[in-house]
Amino acid sequence: MSAGSGHLFVIGLGPGAAEWVTPEATRALAEATDLVGYAPYLQRVPVRPGQTRHASDNREELARARQALALAAAGRKVAVVSGGDPGVFAMAAAVFEALEAGEPSWRGLDVKIIPGITAMQAAAARIGAPLGHDFCVISLSDNLKSWDVIEKRLAAAADADFVLALYNPASKARPRRIHEAFACLRARKPPATPVIFARAIGRPEEEVTVTSLAEADPAIADMATLVIVGSSATRMISGCGPGRPFVYTPRGEGTRQ
Amino acid sequence: MSAGSGHLFVIGLGPGAAEWVTPEATRALAEATDLVGYAPYLQRVPVRPGQTRHASDNREELARARQALALAAAGRKVAVVSGGDPGVFAMAAAVFEALEAGEPSWRGLDVKIIPGITAMQAAAARIGAPLGHDFCVISLSDNLKSWDVIEKRLAAAADADFVLALYNPASKARPRRIHEAFACLRARKPPATPVIFARAIGRPEEEVTVTSLAEADPAIADMATLVIVGSSATRMISGCGPGRPFVYTPRGEGTRQ
Repeated sequence: MSAGSGHLFVIGLGPGAAEWVTPEATRALAEATDLVGYAPYLQRVPVRPGQTRHASDNREELARARQALALAAAGRKVAVVSGGDPGVFAMAAAVFEALEAGEPSWRGLDVKIIPGITAMQAAAARIGAPLGHDFCVISLSDNLKSWDVIEKRLAAAADADFVLALYNPASKARPRRIHEAFACLRARKPPATPVIFARAIGRPEEEVTVTSLAEADPAIADMATLVIVGSSATRMISGCGPGRPFVYTPRGEGTRQ
Repeated sequence: MSAGSGHLFVIGLGPGAAEWVTPEATRALAEATDLVGYAPYLQRVPVRPGQTRHASDNREELARARQALALAAAGRKVAVVSGGDPGVFAMAAAVFEALEAGEPSWRGLDVKIIPGITAMQAAAARIGAPLGHDFCVISLSDNLKSWDVIEKRLAAAADADFVLALYNPASKARPRRIHEAFACLRARKPPATPVIFARAIGRPEEEVTVTSLAEADPAIADMATLVIVGSSATRMISGCGPGRPFVYTPRGEGTRQ
């Protein structure tokens, strides 16, 4: 079989709830001959007879991408299964890194990215509309980039009064990074700025904490947490709903500049 | 009926294609007694007997939000229909603005935001993974904020080497803003920076243009266009697929700082 006959879907399952899996993703999962992915994501996909599963560990994104491309090049219809949106801090970039550095024939494969609801959207929906105006999306993981770059971006985003969505806020290997990020933001944003810690949204262990930049305890963030930090315009509405306020950023924001 | 008996869903339909409408959105649309929204979005929703439609013009977001809240307060089950993700430059923020400024009893309503695929995700998926690393999301509409704030944010995002996703790049009322934005970015980013104009993704008139910051013609952007401007790490892979390169931003990016 030529490489040209293979197909590679890179599929976003969304943050966890089945009701956020798009029809496009469901169809591609049903068509695949092989599923490749981090084991916990594969577990979310219903088992289909005749479909082969290739589960891998976390942190092995590039090896997983290469395996998927090689399978597709062998003529298989391969689904790389990703949480959230594969295009946002997930598997799509790793697949293109592997494709660019890999066998020339891989460029003939039919590669399709299937978007999904990403964590910041699910978190925002649960709490109101904190991403209702200009925002920056930053991964705090310094596995593949220097902390200096991350801190520079945090400072730039804070100084220009963006809302921030922070992915990968902490891990066992680097529990202090989120504290350093909050120190950077506290030096630049008003103490009353709303902060949201949204953990495992759409999964049974879902948990949402609304607080302020002054009072936030960054230690509650883990790898399953998405952190949103408001702009100077982000507001809370109290007296609504089930015990926590709505948080939103108006469309035309007043700004402190 | 008391206000507490009403329900308000704010629903994201995604960028246009039915395969991107989540099961959660489909279910909420089926449960609603009343649909409220900008007419072209309402047209995307299959007609159901017994469901009342309240179509409104563009630019009437706050009036539409108030109408939806008043209907919900009268005991109706109201779906505010939004394109993309209602939480990203769409109806959710307007609903919370109206809720906060409106009748105190509105705070007792059951308000639920239902996320959707937003334009930048659909655009990114079509072209590769340009949002694979830190990015900023900016609306170029100066209807409700000053151009100074927008320009300051563009400059900050460029100087900190973020990828940029630009919403609302142009309209008949302000055709020059996208040119001013490009002038700001050209003064700060390398000429070879990849630029993507993604128009009407997921709809029949879909069109994607890949170019560079030096060669881009901002005049091709209209209100249906989402513009992505790469970071210094964003790369093109040529020789793949149907006549245009893949564009992606690696996970661990080299940076010019």
